[in-house]
Amino acid sequence: MRDKKICIVGMGLLGGSFAMGLIRAGNIVYGIDICEESIAYAKENGYITDGSVSGYGRFVSDADIVVLCLYPHVIIDWVKKNAALLKKGAVITDVCGVKCGIVEKVQSILGDKAEFYSGHPMRGKEVLGVKNADCGIFKNANYILTPTKKNTKEAEAVIRDMAETLGFVTFSILSPEQHDKMVGYVSQLTHVIAVSLMTAADRAELAPYAGDSFRDLTRIATIDETLWSELFLRNRENLIGEIDRFCASMKEFKEYLDREDEVAIKELLRLSTERRRRFDKS
Amino acid sequence: MRDKKICIVGMGLLGGSFAMGLIRAGNIVYGIDICEESIAYAKENGYITDGSVSGYGRFVSDADIVVLCLYPHVIIDWVKKNAALLKKGAVITDVCGVKCGIVEKVQSILGDKAEFYSGHPMRGKEVLGVKNADCGIFKNANYILTPTKKNTKEAEAVIRDMAETLGFVTFSILSPEQHDKMVGYVSQLTHVIAVSLMTAADRAELAPYAGDSFRDLTRIATIDETLWSELFLRNRENLIGEIDRFCASMKEFKEYLDREDEVAIKELLRLSTERRRRFDKS
Repeated sequence: MRDKKICIVGMGLLGGSFAMGLIRAGNIVYGIDICEESIAYAKENGYITDGSVSGYGRFVSDADIVVLCLYPHVIIDWVKKNAALLKKGAVITDVCGVKCGIVEKVQSILGDKAEFYSGHPMRGKEVLGVKNADCGIFKNANYILTPTKKNTKEAEAVIRDMAETLGFVTFSILSPEQHDKMVGYVSQLTHVIAVSLMTAADRAELAPYAGDSFRDLTRIATIDETLWSELFLRNRENLIGEIDRFCASMKEFKEYLDREDEVAIKELLRLSTERRRRFDKS
Repeated sequence: MRDKKICIVGMGLLGGSFAMGLIRAGNIVYGIDICEESIAYAKENGYITDGSVSGYGRFVSDADIVVLCLYPHVIIDWVKKNAALLKKGAVITDVCGVKCGIVEKVQSILGDKAEFYSGHPMRGKEVLGVKNADCGIFKNANYILTPTKKNTKEAEAVIRDMAETLGFVTFSILSPEQHDKMVGYVSQLTHVIAVSLMTAADRAELAPYAGDSFRDLTRIATIDETLWSELFLRNRENLIGEIDRFCASMKEFKEYLDREDEVAIKELLRLSTERRRRFDKS
């Protein structure tokens, strides 16, 4: 993708990284944020062609593509407020980690004005802000598209083109419901586990003994509380189901330990090894 | 350490890696195993000076240091059977992941014949066998020493010297009880979590969507069932305590989700982030 006009709303880690990759590929990139400093940083570092915290109507109206890199609860408000500014035929997308309750709502607000084609780039970093932006993180990553019946093949092609320009190589199509069920397991449950391990007890005195396995497992325990509390709550039914299944599995393990059932423990370890191998990258 | 005579008992991943590193540093290394093929492989690849599956008495008798790279339950039997062969003043050590029930028993079998100074090299790999041996894994790693009142400073110096030769740079001294409590949290609980996540449900269809966080968290779900079932059971009281604390923490998280308590969830995420930062490598 080149020579497109792309407006990025939200100049944080992900918005900044999108801007950086898209401007380098030869597109015109506008940046919008509520923070003066983030816009100034993005401009100074050449991540955006132009940008502003106010009077940004001209950027929105000029854009072929608008990428909403906002906290979930802000997306709907932003669209309500700015829908009238959108260019007829523009493609709007987001990067939000939860889809139900957002995708259909935004589509109904937009009507025929512009097309909202939702997606979820499966790559991030454990740090925040445009100062940590890095378009290199998208190389070889996975992009999930979550269309509804209202979406067109044309808009899908636009999002894919943009994502490929950023370095994404694999694409999956899931319904918003399938998406939220999937992230409940592969992403949200794992974050809750890492968080619970750290909050279970204060064990900082054990830090010198923590090996790579402990560090790898808890890396995601460093977490943006504003974003993730919202993601967890928006997907709470799926997430509660996953927590229940996982805790039942921990309880089973503990029962085998309790009754010193070596055969049953070995069988769990064997099953775990077999299943985990199917998650290895081919 | 160089020009020492070192006998490695158990030519697996760890035994092979010890042999490889110690022979390269200029020591005479003997290898003992019950598997002909492992000894042959170690010889062919120059990991050992000599070795055998039987008639290995001369290697044991000649050794200044004997390193037991055996499954926990085999250690005591091996020492009982071979104590008489040990050279007076030899230092015996092990690499076992659980210490209680092993260290004092081995020391009492040996009496004044030779000194058993137990240790735990905190580095491994998710693969087994001498064919995966790699002495590079020990570079900059952590070695835990677990002496009792029966141990001497002289033997400690021998083990440290050997470990430094292999690349270990930090050393900690813990009692066998402190060691087992520590591994219950930083190592065993994390393995049980990874295993339980894989055994909770068959979700192989989600493999294409699993990102780095899922892969990092479950990397250790590929696990040697014979070794780890024994380690878990030998440390079951500590491990059950850790599982209970962790599950209580998961339950708390779930309750906050249930009642949509955003403030409480944010507080857990904030606490998690703060605590995890103290585990970052300085």
